[in-house]
Amino acid sequence: MTQLGARLAAIAPGAVEIELPFAEALAQQDGYLHAGALLAVLDSACGYAAMTLTPGGTGVLTVELKANLLAPARSGTIKARGEVLKAGRTLTVCHGDAVEVVGDKEVHVATMLATMIARDGDPAPP
Amino acid sequence: MTQLGARLAAIAPGAVEIELPFAEALAQQDGYLHAGALLAVLDSACGYAAMTLTPGGTGVLTVELKANLLAPARSGTIKARGEVLKAGRTLTVCHGDAVEVVGDKEVHVATMLATMIARDGDPAPP
Amino acid sequence: MTQLGARLAAIAPGAVEIELPFAEALAQQDGYLHAGALLAVLDSACGYAAMTLTPGGTGVLTVELKANLLAPARSGTIKARGEVLKAGRTLTVCHGDAVEVVGDKEVHVATMLATMIARDGDPAPP
Amino acid sequence: MTQLGARLAAIAPGAVEIELPFAEALAQQDGYLHAGALLAVLDSACGYAAMTLTPGGTGVLTVELKANLLAPARSGTIKARGEVLKAGRTLTVCHGDAVEVVGDKEVHVATMLATMIARDGDPAPP
Repeated sequence: MTQLGARLAAIAPGAVEIELPFAEALAQQDGYLHAGALLAVLDSACGYAAMTLTPGGTGVLTVELKANLLAPARSGTIKARGEVLKAGRTLTVCHGDAVEVVGDKEVHVATMLATMIARDGDPAPP
Repeated sequence: MTQLGARLAAIAPGAVEIELPFAEALAQQDGYLHAGALLAVLDSACGYAAMTLTPGGTGVLTVELKANLLAPARSGTIKARGEVLKAGRTLTVCHGDAVEVVGDKEVHVATMLATMIARDGDPAPP
Repeated sequence: MTQLGARLAAIAPGAVEIELPFAEALAQQDGYLHAGALLAVLDSACGYAAMTLTPGGTGVLTVELKANLLAPARSGTIKARGEVLKAGRTLTVCHGDAVEVVGDKEVHVATMLATMIARDGDPAPP
Repeated sequence: MTQLGARLAAIAPGAVEIELPFAEALAQQDGYLHAGALLAVLDSACGYAAMTLTPGGTGVLTVELKANLLAPARSGTIKARGEVLKAGRTLTVCHGDAVEVVGDKEVHVATMLATMIARDGDPAPP
C-alpha cells in the first residue's frame, strides 16, 4: 500500500479510510488511475476495517471481492472507505466506496463488496 | 428446488448437474425465465457440488455468489452445472454455468462464481 | 415476483422497497428462506429502482449481480430495498439490502450489488 | 501493467495471457503477492481479451469485476489468462484465471468474472 503512496487516514471500530494521492505513475495510457491501484486501496480499506473487529487482532485474508467502477479517477486524492457490514466468527463481510476528491468536490469512482476470513481460518488448505 | 420443478440430473465428485424444464409459472411478464429461478438452480448446483467434497458429508451454506446473465432463457430445459474450483477446510469455491437446451442446441444463459462454507463453520454467529 | 407473494411497498426516484412475507413454500428443508427467493426480490428491487431513473421509462435487464448472504431468514417479512448508486446512459449500478422484520426487530440478511442495462441497449446480441 | 513488470505473453481471438514475474516490490508484509497486483493483471487479461473481439478495435472499460483469491502467490511467475465468455454489441463478459508457475508446477491462485464495455458506450456519463 505504501508502495502506491497510500496512507491510513482514519480508523474506528469497523471503519477505515485510506488516502491515495493521484500520481502519474499510477495512471494508464489514457491518464486514468489504473483499476489495480483503485482495487488495491479499496481491498486494503475493507481488510483493515475487518481487522478492527477481529478477536485478538489477528490478521485477515481476502476471500473474494467484487467492485463496480463508476467513473474514472484522474487527479486529486482518492479516498477509499471500508466498513464492516457483518462480523462473524470466521468471516467478515465489508463494503467499500472510493471517491475522487478535487477541491471540495467528491466524485464516487468505485464501490466494493468483499469477504474476509480470519487468518487462522485458512481459506485454502491442501 | 423441487418447488421449481428442478431435479438432480447428474452427480460426481466435485460436479453436479441440475435440470429445470422451462415453465410459464417461472416466466416474467416478457416471457423470459425469471432471474430468481435461474439463480436458484445455479446456486443449488454449486452447493451440491461443494457437498460432494465436504468431509463427513456435512451441509454447506452459500456465503456469496455472483452471476452474469448472458442471454434470456424462454423455452426448453435449463441445465445448471456446478463445479468445485477449490475445496478448502472451511470454504469451497465453485463455478456454475447454465445453458438453455432446445433440441440439440445449447445457449449459454448464465455463469456464476460462488463461495460456500461448511455448515459447522457458521458464517454469521450472533 | 407476485408468484412468490411479494409486493411493491414503496417507490421513489432511485429507490424501491419490496416486501415478501415468509412462507413455508419458500423454505428449504432446514426451514430457512431459499436463496433463490431472496435473490429474486433483491434483483427486482434493484431493477425497479433503476427503472425509476431510466429515460422514457424503458425497461431494464440485469447484466450481473453479486450478493452476500449475511444471516438466514426464517420468519416474519423480508424487506428488500434497492437503490441506484450511479445512473448512466446505458448502465445503472444499484445496491440492495434485505432485512428480515419480526415485530420491531430487523436483521440484515443479505446485501447486493447489481448492474442493469436499459432494454434497448441489448446486452447480448448475436 | 508494465509498471508492475508484466508483459503480454500470448494473444488470440478472445483469449489473452499476461505474465507477471513475482517481485519483492509487489509483496505484502507477509511475503505474498499483493491482491492489487494480481487483480490488475487479471483485469488487464480480461480487458485485452475483450478488445480482440471489439468491432473496430475500440478500447474497453471495466464495468465491474469479481474475483476469488484461492491461494497466496509468493514466488515464480504469475500467468493471468483472460477469455471472452460472451461478446455483445455493447458489453463483453470475460472470465480470467491466474496461476502461479514454479518450475513445472502450477497452482491456481485466483479466478475472475468481469464485464467490459466498448469505450464509445460510455458507462458513466454526467
